[in-house]
Amino acid sequence: MSSFRFELVHQSKKSRARVGKIHTAHGIIDTPGFVPVGTNGALKAVDSVVVDQLNVDLMFSNTYHLMISPGADVVETAGGLHKFMNRKKPIITDSGGFQVFSLCYGGVAQELKSKGTKKQDSSVLKITEDGVLFRSYRDGAKILLTPETSIAAQKKLGADIIVSFDELPPCHVDKKTLGKSFERTHRWEKRSLEAHKNDPRQQALYAVVHGGIDNDLRRKSAEILGAQDFDGFGIGGSVGKNRDEMITMLKKLMPHIPTERPNHLLGIADLGSLEHCIPLGIDTFDSAHPTKCARHGLLFTWQGTRRIYKAGSSTDFGPIESGCSCYTCQNYTTAYLHHLFKAHELSAFSLASIHNVHHMVERMKAYRAAILEDKI
Amino acid sequence: MSSFRFELVHQSKKSRARVGKIHTAHGIIDTPGFVPVGTNGALKAVDSVVVDQLNVDLMFSNTYHLMISPGADVVETAGGLHKFMNRKKPIITDSGGFQVFSLCYGGVAQELKSKGTKKQDSSVLKITEDGVLFRSYRDGAKILLTPETSIAAQKKLGADIIVSFDELPPCHVDKKTLGKSFERTHRWEKRSLEAHKNDPRQQALYAVVHGGIDNDLRRKSAEILGAQDFDGFGIGGSVGKNRDEMITMLKKLMPHIPTERPNHLLGIADLGSLEHCIPLGIDTFDSAHPTKCARHGLLFTWQGTRRIYKAGSSTDFGPIESGCSCYTCQNYTTAYLHHLFKAHELSAFSLASIHNVHHMVERMKAYRAAILEDKI
Repeated sequence: MSSFRFELVHQSKKSRARVGKIHTAHGIIDTPGFVPVGTNGALKAVDSVVVDQLNVDLMFSNTYHLMISPGADVVETAGGLHKFMNRKKPIITDSGGFQVFSLCYGGVAQELKSKGTKKQDSSVLKITEDGVLFRSYRDGAKILLTPETSIAAQKKLGADIIVSFDELPPCHVDKKTLGKSFERTHRWEKRSLEAHKNDPRQQALYAVVHGGIDNDLRRKSAEILGAQDFDGFGIGGSVGKNRDEMITMLKKLMPHIPTERPNHLLGIADLGSLEHCIPLGIDTFDSAHPTKCARHGLLFTWQGTRRIYKAGSSTDFGPIESGCSCYTCQNYTTAYLHHLFKAHELSAFSLASIHNVHHMVERMKAYRAAILEDKI
Repeated sequence: MSSFRFELVHQSKKSRARVGKIHTAHGIIDTPGFVPVGTNGALKAVDSVVVDQLNVDLMFSNTYHLMISPGADVVETAGGLHKFMNRKKPIITDSGGFQVFSLCYGGVAQELKSKGTKKQDSSVLKITEDGVLFRSYRDGAKILLTPETSIAAQKKLGADIIVSFDELPPCHVDKKTLGKSFERTHRWEKRSLEAHKNDPRQQALYAVVHGGIDNDLRRKSAEILGAQDFDGFGIGGSVGKNRDEMITMLKKLMPHIPTERPNHLLGIADLGSLEHCIPLGIDTFDSAHPTKCARHGLLFTWQGTRRIYKAGSSTDFGPIESGCSCYTCQNYTTAYLHHLFKAHELSAFSLASIHNVHHMVERMKAYRAAILEDKI
């Protein structure tokens, strides 16, 4: 029996925003919560012990990458992903589907240009009712990803929260093709749930709500998946070509997502989106954005983003943000960080990432406090 | 008055090896000691607080690089290098001469090929009795490095131990040219000492013993410099084209280095050299070798160097070295490190560097224990 449980702490009187606690075998995830992405079972430039010290409640890792290297079997032999990467707190893994289909169609920007045509250098060999056959970028080996193999891999990885295998349709498709993909993705999710139920362990399974920016399809998806025994809901698929489209879609969708189970917005956690999505009732948000920004010298503060390469930084002997309690601000000045970045010192990336992740954790804490007071 | 003082703790009965303590304003340096190199005022991939935790007694930083970026003035305004980089323990800076002349002649390997001819792309514009005029690789600005400007820059940086400005002659020069360089380098060192004496602060000044692999010149250099009021002696210049040449030279030289003051072998601290040089009475050794090895996945153990990329590492769920008390071995397995290296995760470089520096610190501790028991 899974120890997974969602506890609603407070429902705002002002919006759909809510404060909750997701209980897992590896501890509690306070929501709304930011979920940093450690694609390869590692947050970029920050080791797992430090990530734990940053009070990151939930960390995201990618099944696709881990399947290819070091392989789900190696992680299982290590005793699961927690032991492998030495993370004590909760982990969520995705199904691998998103990455496989991204490889097929390219990212959103690429996709908009190519109008959804298949990339020439695609490693995807075949998409059938069964699943997707693709070639490993590592050694060229053929890998079949199906609902069953994805769930099996995620069982081996052993994250606290796992995600159904779904199809990511390209956003430039006709309604008929989108409809076919929509039907198939729900069949795949149902198979994912069955595979999970055969061997639940201490894991929770999230469905992925689809439908692109078609409000009817989104509502239908929420209804289909809500009627099944999923532990929570990811909001995935194409969420539009900009933030406005996403917000418009989410406003319509969120009232159809069952409230007694937690939900997660897949791949989105920039500051602007958080501000709009938290009042809509989103519980958790994963994104590599804050750590990617950090590695580019963009440092988050409550007064806006600071650019470390800016000339004035070189003689700013105060911390990145006055009053910030993070390891970086407690120990190093803006001038020193500026110097490290200019000198291409690797510790620049670590220190900047620590600051940005700390900032995100603090920001979510502030959001929770505001919701508890019905200010959001 | 400088708080600098060398305390001889024990002189081995078996060799010239000795255990000592170098007292500085920022604490004690146990000798023989390993001195990691943080060229830009930062150990590569490891931040200063962690370096302090590793019990690194003395850290090396390069005046040349710091002069160019962020500039000695910025570091001075920050309150000196200790404050700038947040290092609590002792620091040694070099004079900048080595880097300038390396740029001029290239590294040893390059030099052996080019037979000491000037590099085409040299940034050195002119060498005169006054000093060296070179072009900054950063912004093309002309910089004049002389004994006086080098000492002035090192005053601004504020390291506990600073080094005289010297000339590094190419190793393929005729005896007459070497002789001229030899004379000039000692005039430059004398001027360095005078500049230092005018404003000693809490700093100690080391001379640099020259003479290439010419035993007579080396002895003469030790005598010239030993007769002056330097606080210690670096052994620099060309130390031969391989370890054997260096050891042969050092065996002849070391009896001429005053024993009541500390000495330092510049730029050499590989494990093989340590083993040969410690019995000759060398006190401190700086090198970027252990951290460079770490970034290449070469991990030091008491049983030899482990190659992290080796296939067997992928399923080795033990630490790099059983019984190792370093942060890396306490928290992560060989398999995980192998994975991080293969996935090009930046934390691989940090964790490997921490392990290798810890190993060097432990190795020097063991050397000191062995000397105390007259086993070396």
